[in-house]
Amino acid sequence: MLPPNIESAFVAALSREQVMTDADVLALYSHDETPRACLPLAVLFPREQNEVVALMRVAMAHGVVLVARGAGSGNVGGALPAPQSVVVSFECMNRILEVNAADRYMVVQPGVITAEIDRVAREHGLFYPPDPGSSAYCRIGGNLAMNAAGPRAVKYGVTRDYVLGLRAVTGTGQLIQTGCRTTKGVTGLDLTRLLVGSEGTLALITEATLKLLPAPEARATLRVCYASNADACRAVARVMSQDVVPCALEFMDRQSIAAIQAAGAATDLPAGTASLLMVEADGVADDLPRQVAALQQALAGEGMLELQQATDKDAVTALWLARKSLSHAVKLIAPLKINEDVVVPVSRLTELVVYIEQLAAEYILPIVSFGHAGNGNLHVNIMVDPADAVQMQRAKTALRLLFAKVLALGGTLSGEHGIGSEKRPYVDMEIDAATLDIMRRIKSQFDPDNLLNPHKLLPDAG
Amino acid sequence: MLPPNIESAFVAALSREQVMTDADVLALYSHDETPRACLPLAVLFPREQNEVVALMRVAMAHGVVLVARGAGSGNVGGALPAPQSVVVSFECMNRILEVNAADRYMVVQPGVITAEIDRVAREHGLFYPPDPGSSAYCRIGGNLAMNAAGPRAVKYGVTRDYVLGLRAVTGTGQLIQTGCRTTKGVTGLDLTRLLVGSEGTLALITEATLKLLPAPEARATLRVCYASNADACRAVARVMSQDVVPCALEFMDRQSIAAIQAAGAATDLPAGTASLLMVEADGVADDLPRQVAALQQALAGEGMLELQQATDKDAVTALWLARKSLSHAVKLIAPLKINEDVVVPVSRLTELVVYIEQLAAEYILPIVSFGHAGNGNLHVNIMVDPADAVQMQRAKTALRLLFAKVLALGGTLSGEHGIGSEKRPYVDMEIDAATLDIMRRIKSQFDPDNLLNPHKLLPDAG
Repeated sequence: MLPPNIESAFVAALSREQVMTDADVLALYSHDETPRACLPLAVLFPREQNEVVALMRVAMAHGVVLVARGAGSGNVGGALPAPQSVVVSFECMNRILEVNAADRYMVVQPGVITAEIDRVAREHGLFYPPDPGSSAYCRIGGNLAMNAAGPRAVKYGVTRDYVLGLRAVTGTGQLIQTGCRTTKGVTGLDLTRLLVGSEGTLALITEATLKLLPAPEARATLRVCYASNADACRAVARVMSQDVVPCALEFMDRQSIAAIQAAGAATDLPAGTASLLMVEADGVADDLPRQVAALQQALAGEGMLELQQATDKDAVTALWLARKSLSHAVKLIAPLKINEDVVVPVSRLTELVVYIEQLAAEYILPIVSFGHAGNGNLHVNIMVDPADAVQMQRAKTALRLLFAKVLALGGTLSGEHGIGSEKRPYVDMEIDAATLDIMRRIKSQFDPDNLLNPHKLLPDAG
Repeated sequence: MLPPNIESAFVAALSREQVMTDADVLALYSHDETPRACLPLAVLFPREQNEVVALMRVAMAHGVVLVARGAGSGNVGGALPAPQSVVVSFECMNRILEVNAADRYMVVQPGVITAEIDRVAREHGLFYPPDPGSSAYCRIGGNLAMNAAGPRAVKYGVTRDYVLGLRAVTGTGQLIQTGCRTTKGVTGLDLTRLLVGSEGTLALITEATLKLLPAPEARATLRVCYASNADACRAVARVMSQDVVPCALEFMDRQSIAAIQAAGAATDLPAGTASLLMVEADGVADDLPRQVAALQQALAGEGMLELQQATDKDAVTALWLARKSLSHAVKLIAPLKINEDVVVPVSRLTELVVYIEQLAAEYILPIVSFGHAGNGNLHVNIMVDPADAVQMQRAKTALRLLFAKVLALGGTLSGEHGIGSEKRPYVDMEIDAATLDIMRRIKSQFDPDNLLNPHKLLPDAG
């Protein structure tokens, strides 16, 4: 329970209705998309930047741990409350403060829903490229915290590439302002990109200036079926070594196909389909045929069974059905998915996928892999039953082997989900002690009392 | 003079011929492109990463200040030796360690010449987009330190956007490794982009993994003449608010035209030309006509006097002659140029250019402005005679007014040159005290003894 004097202080800093301690509210904010949960002591709903400064000062005065939260749609426990912590929900800071179409930027509060940013940009002939799978309900603050991405990243880059500047409140209650509103700027140290992906451990982001691009005029969609995982992975490598960069290059492995077929979806795939690529190109309408031709040429090769193309909306939706049915189909396999998003250089994807098949066989685990293959970013889902302790132990062993293989292939633990609490035990497999040490030192400068999302992102010092 | 015991220690860490103290060598390394100079005590030439660790440890043991240096072609004193300092020249760490065409990256040592990176990339059908004016002789380490850019930044972004990962030696002698080799990666804090643009104040960069892009197949060049600065600036705003992003959008103002005409160059400009845009488009050959048509439409408008187009090499060179003759022509105006590279949002460029004309008139100063207008990045050159104290004082006043105007227009002090020593007095006009404080705290963690390029980039704490 939040001590009454601290509750009063938060109420004084905000208002009565912005400080919630009802049991049902606490329960609602106790979890994210991981299976874990931890009840916070309270949930705060600031509406303005000054209120964030005020609540931070209360937290400092009373040593209260704060956990920033967008929509709670993260996969790695980044927004999971720490024990005895207070959640800061940015849902009520959900205003678009400025749209500047001429200079192609938008200034937003952290609680704006990501898809809303894109929608408003398109009213001005522009678009906001990052498109995480959760974009219909996730909030930009969470995207900034985790450096979110999505399918379009293969052509357009990730959240980090669209942040011109930030305002944020550090763990010492200081309001800082980073970056600028222009597409170039080198004044001072680059705190903007340091805060992006820092998972709420350095500062509470209160405002972001986002770069927008001209909206592509047209899009073409290809669905391509292959006889094996390796055939599809080799096609990915071919696509990514020619000139036309697709705006999506999504891969589904043999187990993904099996899962959707078991769920009764995607009945239109040709017999023998073991793997599938969804490929999209965008640009001016006149230029699409050239792009599609180049992509088709790269996609063709050993093991290609079928290539279907669509440009009109209904046909595009039909082609995406197999991919969209995957999320539901996977849930039918086992009660829990251990959801990873490892990355390897694109040329090593085949090796990774073959290795995952070996792991699945050796450790008797259903492993469903799909994802943003154009970036070498594979979502590896180990499907388990938490009640089966023996299986859980096998999964744990397999997971560490997976990460070791990814690193051996020149890859990284996470492409877009982040580290949060879930992947902390593995970070030191990738980052050496000296580099972790300077990261912790930076954290200690932003947040000397360790009040901001402690025990996330970086492993504790040994 | 370097104390003999320290010289011996450096020799032990490197070798006799890698530690130079000859007067002529010291003189050579005493300056950069600013008018200032300061003799270092010695110049070190490491060849390997381990030698950089070793020399850092000697510096720590003896409290020796180190100033990292690429080609010394910077404009702001970033590589200018501090009093009693030792220069670390990366010229001998000039090897390309890996070219991975399939995964589109290159691993380089910091002493590789920037143009060489692009040249080698093109052998593989790829290219390295950042192209600072000095790319034929500058070194990638300096580009990383300053976050260098160039004309192509308008379409392709800046150095920061092409750095996947770094190795570096901190001011405590720790070798750190940041980032990854893949196009996505969110493990740990983003130290990569923190080091890029940190001007050698945080760590000595020993290796960089650079992202490459497919080389554009073809390019078209337009030279467009306007009757006034404002007409050209409005054309820039029109270009940057339509869909086709040019790969160069360079502006020359009335004084630039006057300077090249006074020098006898650019005799082919139509009468009444007061301002000039150089515009380039690149991409697949088939798509260039569409791009050029869109650009021509945007460029046309009030005050346009002439538009010439070229695609073959000789004609392109002829069109660029006016722009290329500028650097020499400007030197004829006055002995010293105070060389700024301010940035404003593109829609505010007209206001900035008009203001500069007012400043030039009011403070009786020749001011020549040109630059990367597509990013709103204007090179403002105040031409002065250092022997004329009264004029120098007027220039100083005008400079502060210029910066104030830039900031009032929503801009930033520097787009690509950096801060170094030259612009430090102005940084606090842009960055507030709380934000500067956390930047200094970060510096103190990387370099607690302030041995790495002290008194650069950030103003000293007041």
